[in-house]
Amino acid sequence: MAQRKIAIQGERGAFSEVAARILGGSSSRTISCESFDELFDKVESGKAANGVIPIENSLIGSIHRNYDLLLERQLHVVGETQVRVRHCLIAPKGTTFGKVSRVYSHPAALEQCRKFFKTNPTVAPITYYDTAGAVKMLSESGLTNSAAIAGPYAAEFYKMKILKKAIEDEPTNFTRFLMLSKKPNKPKGRLKTSIVFSIKNQPGALFKVLSVFALRDIDLTRIESRPVRKRAWEYVFYVDFDGSTAEERVINALDHLGEITHFIKILGSYTATKGDS
Amino acid sequence: MAQRKIAIQGERGAFSEVAARILGGSSSRTISCESFDELFDKVESGKAANGVIPIENSLIGSIHRNYDLLLERQLHVVGETQVRVRHCLIAPKGTTFGKVSRVYSHPAALEQCRKFFKTNPTVAPITYYDTAGAVKMLSESGLTNSAAIAGPYAAEFYKMKILKKAIEDEPTNFTRFLMLSKKPNKPKGRLKTSIVFSIKNQPGALFKVLSVFALRDIDLTRIESRPVRKRAWEYVFYVDFDGSTAEERVINALDHLGEITHFIKILGSYTATKGDS
Repeated sequence: MAQRKIAIQGERGAFSEVAARILGGSSSRTISCESFDELFDKVESGKAANGVIPIENSLIGSIHRNYDLLLERQLHVVGETQVRVRHCLIAPKGTTFGKVSRVYSHPAALEQCRKFFKTNPTVAPITYYDTAGAVKMLSESGLTNSAAIAGPYAAEFYKMKILKKAIEDEPTNFTRFLMLSKKPNKPKGRLKTSIVFSIKNQPGALFKVLSVFALRDIDLTRIESRPVRKRAWEYVFYVDFDGSTAEERVINALDHLGEITHFIKILGSYTATKGDS
Repeated sequence: MAQRKIAIQGERGAFSEVAARILGGSSSRTISCESFDELFDKVESGKAANGVIPIENSLIGSIHRNYDLLLERQLHVVGETQVRVRHCLIAPKGTTFGKVSRVYSHPAALEQCRKFFKTNPTVAPITYYDTAGAVKMLSESGLTNSAAIAGPYAAEFYKMKILKKAIEDEPTNFTRFLMLSKKPNKPKGRLKTSIVFSIKNQPGALFKVLSVFALRDIDLTRIESRPVRKRAWEYVFYVDFDGSTAEERVINALDHLGEITHFIKILGSYTATKGDS
């Protein structure tokens, strides 16, 4: 049987690959893309069956580029999970912590390990384009005075050694990932639904939108707004709610929503898969 | 009379300085700060009477660091305006467009002038930490083969020449700025109010929050959510509405809001000053 191909952004071994294995199974094959645009292209063209994208981090907030791409492109959300972001100090097998004077990682990861650099002032942080990419680079470079900050799976993937675990300042750090596909799910079971819409510029418009859900006892789990590029100070709203597009109350809510919005796009109904925690 | 000092982030001559002059008058003195944290420090310590910060851009969205600082720090919002972002190609007076092979600017500005670089492939974009900073650097460097991308005011400020105007891809590009002060405004006249709150984790909580305003015919002009750092998937909400904290319906709404929120912080009531458009 052919392996299912799942596109991720960034180097293999990253947190996105952990999410792809949770959502697509450990036998699926992960394909690395340079950008999120390329990832959407790969799934739209059928070169990958699915794509897995980070959508929100519990410390940083939304990954806006992916919200924008969900609106612009034609892919469907078919799954969701979350991965705990744990930062480890990772080095080639011969290296000991005493030898390390340079630590490579993505600026956001370096920033999330401030205390580590404060208590180890002889170790210099050096920015790199990607966390797992830094581990890959060290695995190929032969450098013995350097380490990288990335997740534990990156160490396993590149057969490197974890010198220190849990060096992040803030342990409550999770990233939520969505799985995308060219075709929508057949909704069944207990599901979540994601939609995006823009509202007519009227007083109380957002209140009316939320009433559509509240009046039908549909719980919203997330609301996020993004500016409309061509019209200053107009916004599109991204809403996640409990329920699927196969349920009558959801069908009624979406009909009602149509009366008070410029457009609605249903991004998908999907099951949230228990993540790594 | 001593000049009023207004802190801005970034080099002088930038869009923030244009906003500071609209809000503080052209006789005020602008003080450049390296970071937004330093700007808040300067106003809290009294080294500057006011600070002017960008809070939202119509293409990019919210400036999250400043939303976070408004929550963490103790400054009040006392004014608001908006500035149209116009990108110009700026060079020292002897330079002509034919000589330019390198163009320096902030990555976001370079990104917003993609078409210019596509139609002028011999001109290389080079990232610099700041738009106005790039103009300042060129004004001191004596380079004759280089230009910078920044707003028209930066050219005026550093006595440089505008080689090309309006090179941005998207003309509908505005940034909204807030003026901050240690003391709140005495609310009077037609005002807007900004607040931040967190809601209790109950079904329909956000709907109840919006009802508080809708039931009193108070129009919301903006809603934005940001994650709570210590608790994954909990959010604080930033809401702007028409009305001032001196109005009875607003006082009642805020009392009512107190019943269904963990905390509320009133960031300020202020007049929106007509901006540059």
